[in-house]
Amino acid sequence: MATSFFNDLLQTLTERGRSLLRLPREPANGDLTLLAEQLLSEKGEASGVALAETLLASYAAATETKRLAFLKLLADRFGADRAKLDRALEAYRADPDDEDAIRALHDAAEARRQELIRRLNLAPGGTASLVKMREDLLAHLREESALKSVDADFRHLFSSWFNRGFLVLRSIDWNTPAHILEKIIRYEAVHAISDWEELRGRLEPEDRRCFAFFHPQLGDEPLIFVEVALTREIPGAVAPLLASKRQPIRAQEATTAVFYSISNTQKGLTAVSFGHFLIKQVAQDLKRELPNLRSFVTLSPVPGFAAWLAAERQVELSDALDDEDKAALTLLDDPDWHLNPEKTAHIRRPLLGAAAYYFVKAKTRRGTPVDPVARFHLGNGARLERLNFLGDPSPKGLAQAHGLMVNYLYALDDIEANHEAYARAGEVIAAASVRRALRGDRTQRVLAALPE
Amino acid sequence: MATSFFNDLLQTLTERGRSLLRLPREPANGDLTLLAEQLLSEKGEASGVALAETLLASYAAATETKRLAFLKLLADRFGADRAKLDRALEAYRADPDDEDAIRALHDAAEARRQELIRRLNLAPGGTASLVKMREDLLAHLREESALKSVDADFRHLFSSWFNRGFLVLRSIDWNTPAHILEKIIRYEAVHAISDWEELRGRLEPEDRRCFAFFHPQLGDEPLIFVEVALTREIPGAVAPLLASKRQPIRAQEATTAVFYSISNTQKGLTAVSFGHFLIKQVAQDLKRELPNLRSFVTLSPVPGFAAWLAAERQVELSDALDDEDKAALTLLDDPDWHLNPEKTAHIRRPLLGAAAYYFVKAKTRRGTPVDPVARFHLGNGARLERLNFLGDPSPKGLAQAHGLMVNYLYALDDIEANHEAYARAGEVIAAASVRRALRGDRTQRVLAALPE
Amino acid sequence: MATSFFNDLLQTLTERGRSLLRLPREPANGDLTLLAEQLLSEKGEASGVALAETLLASYAAATETKRLAFLKLLADRFGADRAKLDRALEAYRADPDDEDAIRALHDAAEARRQELIRRLNLAPGGTASLVKMREDLLAHLREESALKSVDADFRHLFSSWFNRGFLVLRSIDWNTPAHILEKIIRYEAVHAISDWEELRGRLEPEDRRCFAFFHPQLGDEPLIFVEVALTREIPGAVAPLLASKRQPIRAQEATTAVFYSISNTQKGLTAVSFGHFLIKQVAQDLKRELPNLRSFVTLSPVPGFAAWLAAERQVELSDALDDEDKAALTLLDDPDWHLNPEKTAHIRRPLLGAAAYYFVKAKTRRGTPVDPVARFHLGNGARLERLNFLGDPSPKGLAQAHGLMVNYLYALDDIEANHEAYARAGEVIAAASVRRALRGDRTQRVLAALPE
Amino acid sequence: MATSFFNDLLQTLTERGRSLLRLPREPANGDLTLLAEQLLSEKGEASGVALAETLLASYAAATETKRLAFLKLLADRFGADRAKLDRALEAYRADPDDEDAIRALHDAAEARRQELIRRLNLAPGGTASLVKMREDLLAHLREESALKSVDADFRHLFSSWFNRGFLVLRSIDWNTPAHILEKIIRYEAVHAISDWEELRGRLEPEDRRCFAFFHPQLGDEPLIFVEVALTREIPGAVAPLLASKRQPIRAQEATTAVFYSISNTQKGLTAVSFGHFLIKQVAQDLKRELPNLRSFVTLSPVPGFAAWLAAERQVELSDALDDEDKAALTLLDDPDWHLNPEKTAHIRRPLLGAAAYYFVKAKTRRGTPVDPVARFHLGNGARLERLNFLGDPSPKGLAQAHGLMVNYLYALDDIEANHEAYARAGEVIAAASVRRALRGDRTQRVLAALPE
Repeated sequence: MATSFFNDLLQTLTERGRSLLRLPREPANGDLTLLAEQLLSEKGEASGVALAETLLASYAAATETKRLAFLKLLADRFGADRAKLDRALEAYRADPDDEDAIRALHDAAEARRQELIRRLNLAPGGTASLVKMREDLLAHLREESALKSVDADFRHLFSSWFNRGFLVLRSIDWNTPAHILEKIIRYEAVHAISDWEELRGRLEPEDRRCFAFFHPQLGDEPLIFVEVALTREIPGAVAPLLASKRQPIRAQEATTAVFYSISNTQKGLTAVSFGHFLIKQVAQDLKRELPNLRSFVTLSPVPGFAAWLAAERQVELSDALDDEDKAALTLLDDPDWHLNPEKTAHIRRPLLGAAAYYFVKAKTRRGTPVDPVARFHLGNGARLERLNFLGDPSPKGLAQAHGLMVNYLYALDDIEANHEAYARAGEVIAAASVRRALRGDRTQRVLAALPE
Repeated sequence: MATSFFNDLLQTLTERGRSLLRLPREPANGDLTLLAEQLLSEKGEASGVALAETLLASYAAATETKRLAFLKLLADRFGADRAKLDRALEAYRADPDDEDAIRALHDAAEARRQELIRRLNLAPGGTASLVKMREDLLAHLREESALKSVDADFRHLFSSWFNRGFLVLRSIDWNTPAHILEKIIRYEAVHAISDWEELRGRLEPEDRRCFAFFHPQLGDEPLIFVEVALTREIPGAVAPLLASKRQPIRAQEATTAVFYSISNTQKGLTAVSFGHFLIKQVAQDLKRELPNLRSFVTLSPVPGFAAWLAAERQVELSDALDDEDKAALTLLDDPDWHLNPEKTAHIRRPLLGAAAYYFVKAKTRRGTPVDPVARFHLGNGARLERLNFLGDPSPKGLAQAHGLMVNYLYALDDIEANHEAYARAGEVIAAASVRRALRGDRTQRVLAALPE
Repeated sequence: MATSFFNDLLQTLTERGRSLLRLPREPANGDLTLLAEQLLSEKGEASGVALAETLLASYAAATETKRLAFLKLLADRFGADRAKLDRALEAYRADPDDEDAIRALHDAAEARRQELIRRLNLAPGGTASLVKMREDLLAHLREESALKSVDADFRHLFSSWFNRGFLVLRSIDWNTPAHILEKIIRYEAVHAISDWEELRGRLEPEDRRCFAFFHPQLGDEPLIFVEVALTREIPGAVAPLLASKRQPIRAQEATTAVFYSISNTQKGLTAVSFGHFLIKQVAQDLKRELPNLRSFVTLSPVPGFAAWLAAERQVELSDALDDEDKAALTLLDDPDWHLNPEKTAHIRRPLLGAAAYYFVKAKTRRGTPVDPVARFHLGNGARLERLNFLGDPSPKGLAQAHGLMVNYLYALDDIEANHEAYARAGEVIAAASVRRALRGDRTQRVLAALPE
Repeated sequence: MATSFFNDLLQTLTERGRSLLRLPREPANGDLTLLAEQLLSEKGEASGVALAETLLASYAAATETKRLAFLKLLADRFGADRAKLDRALEAYRADPDDEDAIRALHDAAEARRQELIRRLNLAPGGTASLVKMREDLLAHLREESALKSVDADFRHLFSSWFNRGFLVLRSIDWNTPAHILEKIIRYEAVHAISDWEELRGRLEPEDRRCFAFFHPQLGDEPLIFVEVALTREIPGAVAPLLASKRQPIRAQEATTAVFYSISNTQKGLTAVSFGHFLIKQVAQDLKRELPNLRSFVTLSPVPGFAAWLAAERQVELSDALDDEDKAALTLLDDPDWHLNPEKTAHIRRPLLGAAAYYFVKAKTRRGTPVDPVARFHLGNGARLERLNFLGDPSPKGLAQAHGLMVNYLYALDDIEANHEAYARAGEVIAAASVRRALRGDRTQRVLAALPE
């Protein structure tokens, strides 16, 4: 009952929030710069909410050109207050041990736009508007490098507002309101959902689950969601998971939870990470509900593999590929090679060897794995569990990874140690079968490439 | 229905929250300093939540001595990283126009405990534990001035976490769960509530209301609440409002909403202000429900008046009191003067005159009004509306203000302008009747002091 | 908050209900007759719920033949207890003024299956199972007239259980959970909904509404729902209302609420009427939300018209049609007559004249209107407001009513008087324009048939 | 989420209900008889709800005399329609095998007030008003025996409306809204609760529970509630359970759930039984939550014992008491005998022997146990488990039962068989220790009376 008191309580918050996610019907059209300066002035303290609302509405109503101009202005005129910074520096030099001087230095070095963004956030629906504003900003980031510092401030504040404590995990199922399900269809980024029947196939069967994170300030808008299949073994290919006519199994019989699709929904929250929290909490919740579950794995794409392999095949003295490998891999250039059993038999071993190298040994300049999905899961403390030859023979799968898919394993007890090894020493934690596929040990590679 | 989806969604958040506001039954007892350093290390990224939980539990289980030692350690060892700060300064000097250098300076000047506190906040129930920790800190602030900078960091972070966007206003009434009502009894700071029947008298009648702010991270714990009486005129005394046998009026007949008691509940949130938001939102909500309401006023104590007047009576050439006033005011030293009509008739005029001076002219060194309650309401944009002679003849009322009470008026349309005048120029906005009571104009004062 | 306490409270009821609407996975397979006798015995008092559950599960698992056998058995062996009835009659004869004797007679004359059905209803999900059982029964009613008395008992009990006090009106919109929306698609009986996009077109625009009645014992299963269009005038044709590309109007601008589709969902509740409650409550609720609404009308099919007219055209001395009419109406036999403006011009007047007669003068043997939809709305106190020539030129509309549609008007203030006139004297309340279309007054009919 | 859809849905129902439980501010004052006849007429079909509302409001506003007159009128003029009954009888005689004739007989023999009450129930708040009306009726039942048949009709209808399917079990705890807790204080009938602190002592400790049944039509009004203590053994006295300073045990450590107080709250629902459902469901729910619970027992008063014993002591050749017993029991006439160990030692054995006889052998004329509490629990299928000498030495306990209390045991697996034996053969199921206390076997009784 207390719960339901609080429930009600939060409902108020939400209703307020929701009613304000909409733009006002007749948006104000004020001068953005002037409004921004006013909002940072004394006046802003008393009437900040109204000013913030007007500024955001004016921004929303502005043309793209005006918006960009405003964003650039944020970069140019709303950095740190230099005069204040110089005074603070002087005071610090005068007494480098004065804690207050250091604090003043910290304050003075803060870009003024940070406080501006904080005050904008007080407007009804402010958070949603700011997420939208950053989406605009990201679209211009490449050509306008001055916006980088604005972006850094957005990211800093978003990380604080979207911290784990405020994220709420919810199961999404066939009983979820239609306007939310519609968003799942729209935002699904990994394996597109073409219509409501396909959606139902991912939500309604007993052996399918979906979970999303929500945030009080963004109302019914999911931030990220993961689709889960409950299976009896670790799957190596995605098609059987998505098959429309498949026979569901009883949830209690499942031993494995497969995270086969993770989609972020808000471009404006790029690089504000909550994916690892999502996976870990979903894993814990599922384990509690279904104690028979033993493995929590992904079935993941390998988006960087084909590009890397193409480059590697040009390297004369490749550490990853020997001549024999290179020769075999020329078959990849044949159209429809994946439909020809003879060709796939030839390609299998060298491709998996190259893939093992790609994951375990190839590094970016920063010393991290080349594959972005790998960086995400390994950074979360997962283990690279298995390489799946032709796990995704769709055109997209062939184009980005010659059909390769992989499983990352989330072993709840090892996550912390794995993460630490990865973060400290850049060590890629991989299962023995993956290590065996590495080129060093020919025999092992042959064994490893056999179908399991 | 969407609402109720979200409703559910937030319920999860709350349940999680609530279950964790309790201390674990067997709190860990780790070394606090070591835990703090670990939490700030790389290790903290992966297992931060668990470390934070352990640290907070160990803190909660520690003796007062150990706790103080930890807080002092936060001051001593978790300030800004000096080496990093020096490097940042050097880089800045090398290129003072480099935005990135300024950002780096900003980061380097931030006390390390800020990040520590942010990470502690991720623990389940972390926010509540940190509010409690600051309560400890405030208790030692006077004798341990080194803690001031720790306090500044707490305040900075709390201001961000408890920003208006997350506060939820709820009506508290006789249908509210008992465990919340119990807190209203416990926390009422202005006019104590002795038992459940008295509480009922403040909540159940049609012409009584109560509202509180809650915060998702603190569960069912109210942050601040205000008690409201609906009346037909601006009241000058508190006793009739609290009388147990009074006859309620119909809510629709009320023209005036009286905020007669405002109580903060969390010592650990001292100086993190939400009172003005509360009053303004309650005023708006009441106006919507009861369009007949025309005045929104407080009936407020004057906690600093007696002390100030005692001092002023010692000043030889007081600007506030002339000799005649001083002579009359000696009657205040008689016991039970307030029960003697002759004496009160003598005292009335000079006391109100002194009070007008106290509010309008007397200033602290910072140029603000002497009275803390006045600072709060005037800072919110309210107007000092009326001085009420013997509005509170209780022992406490006599001791702190010779029985004086005042009304502050919240005129929704003027709030902003009032605030600006006050914030910019320190101007005290007061009604004509108060200004007339000022000594400058003798005749006016006589008129002003007549009973209305 | 009290509300939300109760809210919770009822949730329990629902969850219990819902979990039990499903059949047990392994249904018992007991002897139905034996179970029924046990349930009526003393034993049934203590373990009634379990026995009822077993009986219902066994029934659900039985073949159609066995089910029918059971239903017939209800008719044969579970009528009134004759011996008891005879004793009661004797006692009554002995003292016809003894109230207790009359009561005993009443009890003795009650069919034993009534108590049986009442006890079955105590099983979890019992109500839903019994509704299903009556659906079976209705399917056999024609060939098995002995079942009629069983049906009468079901209807009597259902009327009591589904009384107005327990029905809950809910708005259905695009935020409603998908599994309920799915049922709207499935059950829509008047204007079929082909897919989710079409459903969205009926729910999401500002000028479209949908409402349904639910019942606590049937969980998320709607009993009946009505689709409403908000318009600026009384519509004469259905196609514009359902057009996929139409431009919605602002809800506040609407003057008319059109109930263009009413669907019952539960066959097993046939003849347990709640449609009139639905329409009246929806009208009241809409009026409260949108005070600009002035007219509440239906746009209704005329399912019996074509059949009646065909018969009437064969009547030599028809009171409804003269020879001229009959001649003109032969054009109805031409295929695609409705696409030929010349033909429709000829047909219009006589067809509307016949329709006016059909509604106002033609009667069944019981003295009620021939048209079943007319009986429903007139019985609710509505007025026949307008005849719409070619309002529905779809194949179905042409086949059942030569394209005719009508509007029934619900004038909230007249409903009661209309109902009474209809119920007492069989009087059909119709607008002047309809009366004018009656054959009696040739000139009037010509006028009436002009397009408005 | 579906749940919360339904949740909302039912909230509507409740809000509607609640708002209408209040009397209208200016109640109509119509002629009750006239209104009743109108309500049963055709007119009633269309405007029944409004008529019903007026009748109930007029009744509520009427004087006691007028109310009683109305109730008597219900008895006199709203019995079965005699003319109709005679016709039905004739038709039945004409063809005793005509099912329809029997049905018509059944209908005709029904008192007209049944339909009247059904229609009154459709008014908003109708159920609550009717419960109140029956409360009035019960107050006059003794002196106005004509009201008996009215009462029988009320009871019949209430049994149907308050059937198990609509009752909702809710836990009552310290988080329950205050206005509901207040009712627990008011309605507690067994062990009075003097104030909120005492209430808290019964709700808040981990080893105390309280559950109530609610009904959708009666809003927040509990129908019946039971207070439960979780203990480590079957208690023999009530004082330790209610002690204000006792040390709670951990709920998980409890092996026994003691139903120490069961209170009905609605006089108007007298003889509409839901107590046994309450006990059984609470037992099941507790068992699920706390699997360590092994015994579910009551600690019950014995309200009829002292009166019975007084009479029995006068019987010359009592089967229950021999002369020795009678002699010992004269000590009961001494004031404060229970404080004198010597006297209690003398009384113990014969008193327990008499008690065993009272429970097991003494019968009313109908062959049921003399004690009303025993009839309730034994009728539910409980077993008389233990006799507790001086279990309640309060003045009330001494007056009604010479301090005797008993435990009834609800053994979930035996309930059905116990009930059947009791219902069929009037057999009192009692534990061996109780049977041993019977006089037949002297030795046994001595053993049985030893303190356990």
